[in-house]
Parts: sequence; C-alpha cells; structure tokens
Amino acid sequence: MERELFIGIDAGGSETKLVACDGRGNLVGYGKGGPANHLSVGLERMKESLVEAMKDAGCDGLHFESAYIGYSGLGIWSPSELLEKIGHEVIDTDRLAINNDCYNALYGGFGGESGIVAVTGTGSMVLAIDEDGEVTRLGGWGHLLGDWGSGFRIAMDAIQVALKVHDGTVDSKLHDKMMNFFGFDSSRAIVRYFYIEQHSKSEIAAFAPVVIEAAVSGDREARRIVEANAIEVARTAVVMYNRVAVAPRLAVVGGLSKSEFFMEQLRWGVSGWLKLCKPLLQPVFGAVLIAMNNFRKVDKPVLERLSEISGEYEREGRL
Amino acid sequence: MERELFIGIDAGGSETKLVACDGRGNLVGYGKGGPANHLSVGLERMKESLVEAMKDAGCDGLHFESAYIGYSGLGIWSPSELLEKIGHEVIDTDRLAINNDCYNALYGGFGGESGIVAVTGTGSMVLAIDEDGEVTRLGGWGHLLGDWGSGFRIAMDAIQVALKVHDGTVDSKLHDKMMNFFGFDSSRAIVRYFYIEQHSKSEIAAFAPVVIEAAVSGDREARRIVEANAIEVARTAVVMYNRVAVAPRLAVVGGLSKSEFFMEQLRWGVSGWLKLCKPLLQPVFGAVLIAMNNFRKVDKPVLERLSEISGEYEREGRL
Repeated sequence: MERELFIGIDAGGSETKLVACDGRGNLVGYGKGGPANHLSVGLERMKESLVEAMKDAGCDGLHFESAYIGYSGLGIWSPSELLEKIGHEVIDTDRLAINNDCYNALYGGFGGESGIVAVTGTGSMVLAIDEDGEVTRLGGWGHLLGDWGSGFRIAMDAIQVALKVHDGTVDSKLHDKMMNFFGFDSSRAIVRYFYIEQHSKSEIAAFAPVVIEAAVSGDREARRIVEANAIEVARTAVVMYNRVAVAPRLAVVGGLSKSEFFMEQLRWGVSGWLKLCKPLLQPVFGAVLIAMNNFRKVDKPVLERLSEISGEYEREGRL
Repeated sequence: MERELFIGIDAGGSETKLVACDGRGNLVGYGKGGPANHLSVGLERMKESLVEAMKDAGCDGLHFESAYIGYSGLGIWSPSELLEKIGHEVIDTDRLAINNDCYNALYGGFGGESGIVAVTGTGSMVLAIDEDGEVTRLGGWGHLLGDWGSGFRIAMDAIQVALKVHDGTVDSKLHDKMMNFFGFDSSRAIVRYFYIEQHSKSEIAAFAPVVIEAAVSGDREARRIVEANAIEVARTAVVMYNRVAVAPRLAVVGGLSKSEFFMEQLRWGVSGWLKLCKPLLQPVFGAVLIAMNNFRKVDKPVLERLSEISGEYEREGRL
C-alpha cells in the first residue's frame, strides 16, 4: 500500500504556507509562496502563490488523499466555487475542502479540541470551538470598523497619536518613530502616503512592532495603545467564554503573540477566567490537521508528531 | 454709476452655497446647489453645482466686480488652474480668487480680524489668523488619520462602539441607534454598508447628531466619545493660541457647533485660555467678504450689514 498523503495550505494576505505530511504526521514537504488574498491581489496572483508553495515544498506531481486550503479573504461574498476550482487545479487530490484561513488557527490552537483562539495578525478575531465542534466568532469587523489587537489597528492608533504630536497636543516618541519607519520628511509626505499612494494593510501593520518597542521602552502613549488593544482582545475572549460552552483556555496566534509585553497585558486581562496557552499547532499545521481529519479521525500520536514539528519550525523561525 | 456686485461661494462636500451682495453689504442673491468636492463628485458635477447655485440665486447674467470660491477638496494636489478656469466659466467677473473652503470659515469667524476658528463639519480643522493676516492650520489630517471633532469621526467612533455592544464587550444604546439610523437588520448588512457599498463621508457623518442626542440623554459611551472629540478640538485650539500671536478668541462653525452639549465641553476645554465667540459671519458670508476685500477694504458698516444678514439667515435655518 502506498503512503497516504495530506496537504494543508494557509493562503494568507502576505504569504502562502504549505505543509504536506503522511498519515503518521511525518513531514513530507514544507513550502512558501506569495500573497493569496484574492481581494487584494486577484485570483490569478492567488493561484500563482499556491503553485509557488507547491513547488517550493516539492509537492508537484504528488497525489493527496485529502487537502485543505484556508483562504485569507474568503467571506460571505467570495466566489467560493471558483476558489475551490482553483484549489483542484493546483492540487491533485481526492477530497478538497476550503474555508476562511482563520479556521487554520482555530483547529491548530487545541488540535481541534475545545478552546478559544485569538488571531492577532494584520487583522484580528476571536474564535471558539466547543465540545461538539461548533464554531463561534467574535470581533473581526475588519480594518474600518474594528480589528482591535491587530497589527494594523495598533499601527493606525499610533500614527494618529504621532500626528497629534506633530500638532503639539500630545507628547510621545511615536512621531519620530513614524517619520523614521515610513521615511517621511514632511506632512505632505504623510498625507501622500495615506491618501494618494496605494499601500497594503500589511505594509502599514509592519509599524506595529515599532509601537510595541516604544511601549516596552516606556513611552506612555505607545503603552496606552498596546494595553488598550490587548485588553480589548482579552475582554472579547472572556465574553466568548461566558457565552459559549467552551474549555477555559485561550491560545493566541499571529504577529502580536510574539510580543511578551502584549501577551502580558492579555494574560492580565483574562486572569481569573481563562488560562493562556501556547497554540498546539501553528496555523498551517492546523490546516493539514483539518485535511487529515476530513479523511479519518487523527489519533493522539499523530497529533503529537505534528505538534512537535510545528514547534520546531516555529522555534527555528521557519514559519 | 452702476451698482458694484460681489459674489462668494462655499463649494462644500454636500452642497454649494452662494451669496451675492452689493458694495454696501446688501444682499442681492442667495442660492444653493449640489455637492462640489471634485475629489468625490468629479469636476463636471462640481461645475453643475456651481451653475445650480448661480441660477438659484438669480445671479445668471450679472457681472461681478470680484468673486471668491472656497472649494472643498482643494488641496496641495488639486488641479487649481482647472478649478479657477471653471470658476470663470460660471461667473462673469473681473477678478476671481479661489482657495480651500476652510478660508470661508476663517475669514467669516472674525470678519478677517485676528482669532482662532475651529471647523467641525464632516471633517475638522483648527485655523488661526494673526494681526498681519498670516494663516496657520492645525489638525485637518483627513478622515483616515485625524479629524477629531468632526461629524465623520464622531459617527465612526460611535459605530465602533456599537459593534463592541454587538460583540457584548460594552454596554450602550449606540448599537440600537446605529441599527435604526442606517436601517441595518444583520451584521452582514453592516459589513456590506461599509465594505461593499459606496457611501460618502457625509452620509456616515449624518449619524453624529444621533450620537450627540444619546450623549445628552446620558449614554456613557456616547458621552465619552463626544467629550473626547470636543476636548481634542479644544486642546488643538489652545496649542494654536500658545504658538501663534493671535487674539484669544475661538469661533466654531460647522454642524457640531449647533450642539449645546458639544459646545459646553469645548468651552470647558479652552477656559482660562480662549473666549468662545459666535462667528461674525457664517462661511458663505465669509466667502463674499473675501471677494469684497479683494476689491477694496471693507469698512465697518458694511461688515455689520453682512453680519446682520448672516445671523438672520442662520436663525431662520436657511444656511
């Protein structure tokens, strides 16, 4: 009997990640491709990014028992059938499932078991999966209306404070940090960047680590911004816990989870309600777990093997 | 000798207002037209709005000694020559000046004399004119980056709180008020309105009076939003006073100035620094004052006559 193969894809807004493994959870391939949010880069570039990741992982020409793609940007108005069709064009597989990329994080968080996951990437969202596998979402209203605790939100909050510093109504290092980070030399350059030029949300969100750094080094305004964003995520997670019958644990994935300062605020915000856990699997490993589960229920040793590799990849900064 | 005629136009984002008067400040015509921000409605519609206002005021076919148009949306990247040319096509005049519409408010505030004017319309900005006629601007970073104290900002702040109410992390009446005002029946409708459909800033800013009403009736979150926005305008005005050699007085124009609650917060915020005054002239009367001043210096009786008519028009809700 040939080896059974599974593939999981995290088709994100700034890059695509792919994991292929066998039925025992042993890694068969790992690869990366370009951005794959069809809303921002279009369907063609999205497909190209999937193809890149397949090649990079050495998965071209392989046949897969089951595949799962978590697409960034897949929402209620998405061309789901088209996204599924494109998946089939790229992957040779018997069964393919697609969904929004947040499910990668959700299933990765506790290996598909009950718990709450906060996604704090360019955007943000709080998800819960209960004992019966029911999923509930809170937050995630997008960059215009919400996304507290996201890199984009923290960056924009900080830029708005920086402009108050420019006007002289507030004192903070965020102004100089903004000017340096974006290479602005005048107010005109600032206005041009945000209103005339086209910049992606992830380009702007890239300023968030600088804001956190300023917070850590004691800048009061930066501190206030990071705290307020972390507390908002914490509050949403606690509301989730009180609303849904879910295990009292919270895993955080995405860029902000790498900041100890952010996580410390978050831990404080959920204390007495939820235990903060490291996610069992990083999102792309969550994706391959979904693919495997769609074929047959994954047992504990396999999950442990996946978790081990996911942890290794994360520690080595390869994710 | 024929009567000397002057014309001032406030070409705003949601409508155009026009005042024509003679050399003694007597009203010759008053009219309105459609929206005239070329960035949002295009140059053709903008011109149409000017033509509408000319017809409405009965100014078609008249010759003017001097004209002034304050264009909304006129900025550092605007096609100024084109906007001037269009002005000449619409108005038969010996001399025409154009500038951003905020100068209408600024010159109207104290009849061209020294003082600080806060514009709190769909957008916001703080302006000062010193004894030598030098103009300084603070704030006014636009809807993405600033505009504290504007109708759009207050509306968006309130909508974000309403979504927190939806998620259950905050308690406020703003959720129900938002659902009613915009006619939303689901989260899907909310997301569609802001991300899929195209709505103007003034459509969204129209929610601000509802927020203020909620604040007045004691809703804590609404109160916090209105207070924070008013205080930000106050703080900017005080910084302006400390930076520029300007008379210690502040006039407020725009939709928010009609709210007693908003003005009360603002008065509190500037107390000890600035005296809150009623603007001498409403912006479109400021525009005609600029047109007259560009011909010859306006004397006191003429200014008083203009101020009288401006006040009458405001009281009667015709502006």
